[in-house]
Amino acid sequence: MRITDIIEKKRDGKELSTEEINFFIEGICSGSVYEYQASALLMAICIRGLDKRETADLTMAMARSGDMIDLSEIPGVKVDKHSTGGVGDKTTLVAGPIVAACGVPVAKMSGRGLGHTGGTIDKLESIRGFRTSLSREEFIRNVKEIGIAISGQTGNLAPADKILYSLRDLTATISSVPLIASSVMSKKLASGADRIVLDVKTGSGAFMKTLEDSIKLAEEMVSIGELTGRKTATVVTDMDTPLGNCVGNALEVREAIEVLRGRGPEDLKTVCCELAARMLELGGKGDIAFCRDLVENSLKDGSALKKFGELAMKQGAEYMPWDERAMQEAVVKHPVKATREGYITSMESELVGKASMLLGAGRKTRDGTLDHSAGIILYKKTGDYVRPGETIAELHTSSRKLLPEAEAMLIQAYGLSPEAPAERPLILAYVDSSGVTRY
Amino acid sequence: MRITDIIEKKRDGKELSTEEINFFIEGICSGSVYEYQASALLMAICIRGLDKRETADLTMAMARSGDMIDLSEIPGVKVDKHSTGGVGDKTTLVAGPIVAACGVPVAKMSGRGLGHTGGTIDKLESIRGFRTSLSREEFIRNVKEIGIAISGQTGNLAPADKILYSLRDLTATISSVPLIASSVMSKKLASGADRIVLDVKTGSGAFMKTLEDSIKLAEEMVSIGELTGRKTATVVTDMDTPLGNCVGNALEVREAIEVLRGRGPEDLKTVCCELAARMLELGGKGDIAFCRDLVENSLKDGSALKKFGELAMKQGAEYMPWDERAMQEAVVKHPVKATREGYITSMESELVGKASMLLGAGRKTRDGTLDHSAGIILYKKTGDYVRPGETIAELHTSSRKLLPEAEAMLIQAYGLSPEAPAERPLILAYVDSSGVTRY
Repeated sequence: MRITDIIEKKRDGKELSTEEINFFIEGICSGSVYEYQASALLMAICIRGLDKRETADLTMAMARSGDMIDLSEIPGVKVDKHSTGGVGDKTTLVAGPIVAACGVPVAKMSGRGLGHTGGTIDKLESIRGFRTSLSREEFIRNVKEIGIAISGQTGNLAPADKILYSLRDLTATISSVPLIASSVMSKKLASGADRIVLDVKTGSGAFMKTLEDSIKLAEEMVSIGELTGRKTATVVTDMDTPLGNCVGNALEVREAIEVLRGRGPEDLKTVCCELAARMLELGGKGDIAFCRDLVENSLKDGSALKKFGELAMKQGAEYMPWDERAMQEAVVKHPVKATREGYITSMESELVGKASMLLGAGRKTRDGTLDHSAGIILYKKTGDYVRPGETIAELHTSSRKLLPEAEAMLIQAYGLSPEAPAERPLILAYVDSSGVTRY
Repeated sequence: MRITDIIEKKRDGKELSTEEINFFIEGICSGSVYEYQASALLMAICIRGLDKRETADLTMAMARSGDMIDLSEIPGVKVDKHSTGGVGDKTTLVAGPIVAACGVPVAKMSGRGLGHTGGTIDKLESIRGFRTSLSREEFIRNVKEIGIAISGQTGNLAPADKILYSLRDLTATISSVPLIASSVMSKKLASGADRIVLDVKTGSGAFMKTLEDSIKLAEEMVSIGELTGRKTATVVTDMDTPLGNCVGNALEVREAIEVLRGRGPEDLKTVCCELAARMLELGGKGDIAFCRDLVENSLKDGSALKKFGELAMKQGAEYMPWDERAMQEAVVKHPVKATREGYITSMESELVGKASMLLGAGRKTRDGTLDHSAGIILYKKTGDYVRPGETIAELHTSSRKLLPEAEAMLIQAYGLSPEAPAERPLILAYVDSSGVTRY
């Protein structure tokens, strides 16, 4: 087999065989396929496309390029959850404990944040003592004992995806639905769960700008799940504004605790409950109406909050996460005031995320450090009416010097108009192997 | 300007501006554009195409990436000639002296052979003493004094083309008409001639397998010539069998001398005369009928042969090239006999070229050495009837050890059948800015 023949086939719009796809992925890992050959093939894929079988093969080949986590020691159906990334997205911190409290095991590997997006691992580490690097044995034992463990990625998950992703970024081959879908799913397959619930964000702040594109991506991922034997369902949610009112690690943990108490912002609660209910449904707990009731009850009876406390204690937290001593609070708190009058019609999530990063909540580079107490509380969001002088947000940071740039950026994120914006539904669609439901 | 934006535009089938094309070519030369980015763009070009303006811009950008030879010191219209490569193609050795003898200056830069194809420079070096590396001054002085000089490529001609060509070879992006056309033309533009006559080979032994594809390539190159101010004309010729009866350096020089004497094989003579006549026409000597007469006369009156002698002496030859002492003769001469009976219906030029290379006439790698006396004389070619035991060819080499493999390969090159093959015309089409003429 020769890589040039494989590239030529896809260049001419022909279908690649399983063996050819495996040859490509093994070649980029071993170095026998050069980067310039990989990028030529990626461009051909970007223009010519991949069919569902080819996409599933590519996903499996990338998953198998590194460690494949084996969770079979844990009894029950393991359900994983993944979001395509966003600002202020703390859904794992809420949905994870709910699902575990309802009796479906949660064995979750999460990542760190980079740039304007946050990461679950960073958020958890703002709880004093919380350890996120668990050995394989500890990870599995914890899930067996308390039904939940959240760990940083151990081992070498889908290294082929890392190589391809960094190439795609530099060769204008990001925006290909089969390539995006296989990238996400390869890491999920390698992580070992039996079933997968995905949260595809749509809107100005997301990868997928339109609902139609988001549904296409959702369908592609559901199809990969079908073809690789991992039942997958996708919730398409709006990402035109940050989720909830808090951005930044400790602030987001506090907000997640609020939701687990049955309080907190409505938008965040809605998305968390929907994801948790779908996870329970996939975990075999019953139909969706029944699972929604289970979720509601776990918030009412305090079992979900209690589960979060158990998780924190099990992974080394010094105090219960809702204890005042559990997390550091920012030294500097600075109110941001509206300068104009009008309805907030839009909020650029990316700018909000960047402003939070500038305050210390995020990393500019992979090796950067962060200030867990830094971040932003959004008092006013899309749909609210504001008047000059009214506080719209509060910046949290450790140094006043960081305020001016972050404040300017945050103000820039807000779009104002005399007209109230149309209301947007938060849960836009649900996609599983039986089809697409639009809300 | 960012290279990823340029790649994205072409990925989506949009037109690139002159500035964007220049940015790309400057980037690959300076190293600011990575090979994997170049190959992604090449693939996008391969699939989406380039229009005529983009192709001309790409060609000019590649030409300007290195030295641009200035031939303006030489009075008159300088006409260059290029063939898209073949086996046994010694047309420059014949057409060059004819054109010079007829009063149009020939300032020709030529290359060396690689693999199964030969190079004019290697052929000339089989004449004892012939120097092919001339300084710029000597090159121009010789053309001024005797009307002709043939030199190895000096300086750094179109380095961007070299970079792209080596990438294309490894990324299945060779077969793109605008990329092939711009590659050929970039070197011609850099070589400084005012007008260009191209010989596009078509058939099993050539880059372009069908007449239609060859005409498309011819039109593309003519268009580049128009848009860059270098009038270009293209002769499309058949390349289903090697041209003439000799393959190998000294053997080919001898055959060229035969043609200059008005003898030699008919096919070689036809192509050489047509190319020379078109060069004279482009050089402004008159209409094509008149130019064909000029060519005919230069062979009859011996002026073309005399010009070849002058060229050889001027560039250091110890003897006139037709002198027995001028070239080495092979020590081993081995007849190849037919093993079957029938009409020769095809000859794979590539295999003939490879057999000749195995005998010592060609280089396997860029730095290899060669045996000028080695090669093959073809006694029987396509259309001839052969009987078992009849000599069809003669292998020339310096070592009997090289014979078996070369002989087997040569026999493999011949296709035999009881039916006589259809006659194929040799000159298939002529393309210039006024359109396509098919013969």
